[in-house]
Amino acid sequence: MPASTESVRLRESGPADPAPEPDLRHHGDAEVRGADAGLTDLAVNVRTGTPPAWLKDRIAASLDGLAAYPDGRAARRAIAARHGLPAERVLLTSGAAEAFVLIARALPARRPVVVHPQFTEPEAALRDAGYDVGRVLLDERDGFRLDPDAVPRDADLVVVGNPTNPTSVLHPAAVLARLARPGRTLVVDEAFMDAVPGERESLAGRTDLPGLVVLRSLTKTWGLAGLRIGYVLAAEDTIATLERAQPLWPVSSPALAAAEACCAPEALAEAAAAAEEIAADRAHLLARLGEFGQIRVAGPAAGPFVLIRLPGAAEVRTGLRERGFAVRRGDTFPGLGPDWLRLAVRDRATTDRFAAALAEVLGRV
Amino acid sequence: MPASTESVRLRESGPADPAPEPDLRHHGDAEVRGADAGLTDLAVNVRTGTPPAWLKDRIAASLDGLAAYPDGRAARRAIAARHGLPAERVLLTSGAAEAFVLIARALPARRPVVVHPQFTEPEAALRDAGYDVGRVLLDERDGFRLDPDAVPRDADLVVVGNPTNPTSVLHPAAVLARLARPGRTLVVDEAFMDAVPGERESLAGRTDLPGLVVLRSLTKTWGLAGLRIGYVLAAEDTIATLERAQPLWPVSSPALAAAEACCAPEALAEAAAAAEEIAADRAHLLARLGEFGQIRVAGPAAGPFVLIRLPGAAEVRTGLRERGFAVRRGDTFPGLGPDWLRLAVRDRATTDRFAAALAEVLGRV
Repeated sequence: MPASTESVRLRESGPADPAPEPDLRHHGDAEVRGADAGLTDLAVNVRTGTPPAWLKDRIAASLDGLAAYPDGRAARRAIAARHGLPAERVLLTSGAAEAFVLIARALPARRPVVVHPQFTEPEAALRDAGYDVGRVLLDERDGFRLDPDAVPRDADLVVVGNPTNPTSVLHPAAVLARLARPGRTLVVDEAFMDAVPGERESLAGRTDLPGLVVLRSLTKTWGLAGLRIGYVLAAEDTIATLERAQPLWPVSSPALAAAEACCAPEALAEAAAAAEEIAADRAHLLARLGEFGQIRVAGPAAGPFVLIRLPGAAEVRTGLRERGFAVRRGDTFPGLGPDWLRLAVRDRATTDRFAAALAEVLGRV
Repeated sequence: MPASTESVRLRESGPADPAPEPDLRHHGDAEVRGADAGLTDLAVNVRTGTPPAWLKDRIAASLDGLAAYPDGRAARRAIAARHGLPAERVLLTSGAAEAFVLIARALPARRPVVVHPQFTEPEAALRDAGYDVGRVLLDERDGFRLDPDAVPRDADLVVVGNPTNPTSVLHPAAVLARLARPGRTLVVDEAFMDAVPGERESLAGRTDLPGLVVLRSLTKTWGLAGLRIGYVLAAEDTIATLERAQPLWPVSSPALAAAEACCAPEALAEAAAAAEEIAADRAHLLARLGEFGQIRVAGPAAGPFVLIRLPGAAEVRTGLRERGFAVRRGDTFPGLGPDWLRLAVRDRATTDRFAAALAEVLGRV
């Protein structure tokens, strides 16, 4: 079944909108804030037990140099080496969130298209920059798989996540490569790729694809959401354009120290082991979810989270909160609806506790 | 003598340019980098011995929460309370540098004007946003004093520093207030105001001036250049506009922790004491500079740095480097030229060592 394409006008609602426009600025962190602190968090996709002590020590050591302005050169070289690229193909950013804003503001585009369902910040940033943003909506019945032919030929800026948040679907690198062409910027958000064993299907390090822009994050695997650090891999002229749009000193010294530390061989080995653990923990979560007849799981899931569909998801979410578990609502993602929830992959014990709470809730609903 | 006004076309050089356009992107940190590490730094205006241990401890404690996305609400409330304002009039930014970019990109303007000589990032950010930027050039012969009538009446975005980097001149609040009017955004960069005893002439906390935008920094007094933290004070609708242009989670959790800590009464008392010390140390520096007949000092100097004019400044700067002292070149500031240097105020012992080196250099030149 082909994916469908729709166009969304900036800050306008068409008269025939089938559903209210989702809040693109809703994020999982809002679900574990404030009065509800103490909830077991399955809403935010950050690995538990992070940052590890050795990394926290490295960051703490950087505090001795806070009086000096940040110097990003060493971190840039380290990231470049980790991906086998020259430093000129790397840009450090204040989280991937800054990268979305830079892309939207600085790269030329006439017809940007975002492949949904996916993380909503790229579209929000494009809209804020004044664009009409087209959407390619992948279909649940296809397992949210991407057909490159569903992307309009004249789309000159295409954003796709891999593996995709929230569907957890991993698109084959070969399929994404087919989207690359001269005159088009192809943004592949690989924020969760380091949670995929072997980083299979990653396009990081590829230099043969015209217009390719790969976004990477250190937030999820390393527990650095609070530090604001990510990076962009792209052709040198694209990197130079994005860099000119950045404020001076965009990344803090502690974040730079962390980025450099996370590129060390031991860190990469730790991330690889964590990815294997996540895969095992995800298998356990999927097995437990399989015990509930009414739950459908999108997939195959490849990220550190799974997307599930079940009737009455909103009430289930409320019931889970009452039992101490925060899960991510799905209805703020374009293409999904009130029946969807996203669950972070946690260790087996947490998953078992969660499954017990879910059983209670579903017995009641 | 009236200040002069000139207009600078974006990324173009007029045929009758009297001097090459200065490099607006040169900053003091470049003067103490790399092979020359170990220089005594009079180039960067960050207070020595900072951050203090208590502040570093507070920042280090925040590292335990790095896995969570930043939540800026407490820091915002603390800053608002420190200035007697509602939180809706405060925006935390990733350093003042981000604020300049946000102002240039998000606030409406047709004729932006920057009062020079001053920190060059505001003009660079406005140019990057596509503006022709007008300049009001203050005159050395007036002590770089600002005549409000020198600012074009139709300027709808005016940027001025107070105290001004690099001249160290403190404009009277009443003079700046005369620049405020409906239909104009008046940006007062108070990055160094907390180094002025009593913060006299500050407009922070004023709500009676239309279009007023005050920028503040924690970088210089607290030694947090590496952390990226600053803030904007403005009317609620202006703050909302700027906030919409920010990336998600623009300020890191350690930076937020620092901002909150720096608003505590003990911190404000420490900053006030530091401002008094700086004033005394500056008096000593001025006395020592007065021993050199050929040096003119701009002023009266009110900031944690002084701007000096002396023949052959470029050679003097090189000679000082050879003797282990980094000072800030003045020729990258519009309105200044090769004869100018900026010197950070340091403790008496450092100043005395510097004066001895300067004597050697000037004896040789």
